[in-house]
Amino acid sequence: MFTPQPIGFVRSLFKEISAIPKGLGARHPEEGWLEILPEFALGLTDIEGFSHLYVLWSFDQSTGFDLLLTPPSDDRLHGLFTTRAPRRPNPIALTVVELLEREENRLRVRGIDMLDGTPILDIKPYLSNVSAEKLRRGWLAEAEARNN
Amino acid sequence: MFTPQPIGFVRSLFKEISAIPKGLGARHPEEGWLEILPEFALGLTDIEGFSHLYVLWSFDQSTGFDLLLTPPSDDRLHGLFTTRAPRRPNPIALTVVELLEREENRLRVRGIDMLDGTPILDIKPYLSNVSAEKLRRGWLAEAEARNN
Repeated sequence: MFTPQPIGFVRSLFKEISAIPKGLGARHPEEGWLEILPEFALGLTDIEGFSHLYVLWSFDQSTGFDLLLTPPSDDRLHGLFTTRAPRRPNPIALTVVELLEREENRLRVRGIDMLDGTPILDIKPYLSNVSAEKLRRGWLAEAEARNN
Repeated sequence: MFTPQPIGFVRSLFKEISAIPKGLGARHPEEGWLEILPEFALGLTDIEGFSHLYVLWSFDQSTGFDLLLTPPSDDRLHGLFTTRAPRRPNPIALTVVELLEREENRLRVRGIDMLDGTPILDIKPYLSNVSAEKLRRGWLAEAEARNN
């Protein structure tokens, strides 16, 4: 296996975890910056053509994990791998952001749900959707229905 | 930073990298299994309700990286972070699969693009799409247009 290393860091308005919206209906309209380390900046070539990016980042404030947990979006227990809980065997997070602007090695993006200073592990292009007719969202759809 | 550990392994028909379709228009209709280690199986609770999953896995055959490269889908150089190339600073891969069936700690899925025996790092629920009107796919859309 590899040894994770930051390729950059998030610059965000969120200085504390409690400030990040979560739970049912949480939205993440916040803008922020992905600051890529200068030695990796060449890897951003041509990125302006992509509207959306996957950002892989490290839940670096998390330790340990529970295989069953009650997520903020429900009052019932669910399996860890059906949730986006930060405490995981491999504490890797995944966020889809909208790319607004590039300034050399810095990307301004919308959709920030990371703390300021969060280590970024990877950026990948977002290329395709799952067809809407085929998408089922399990317990989350049920929790939303109960709360409507 | 954390130390990556497998939560399971892929069972796939692909025994060699050369057998995996890639490049423009590559499709991945293949089925295979995600075998989650018994000690993590409880984390799969309720997963049957989800049609699609994100699988994070390790490009465990890859070493090193180039920040500019010519991907199989084009004949021009592009930045590493606009591609899904396996050789990356953190060799973490991301695949969206369709969940077909669960047998205890094994998930039968469609969309396999991993070698047999590939270490799985994480599974997350696929919950939402980017709106089709907003999605732009940069150089990949241009390469497709040139090849049509």
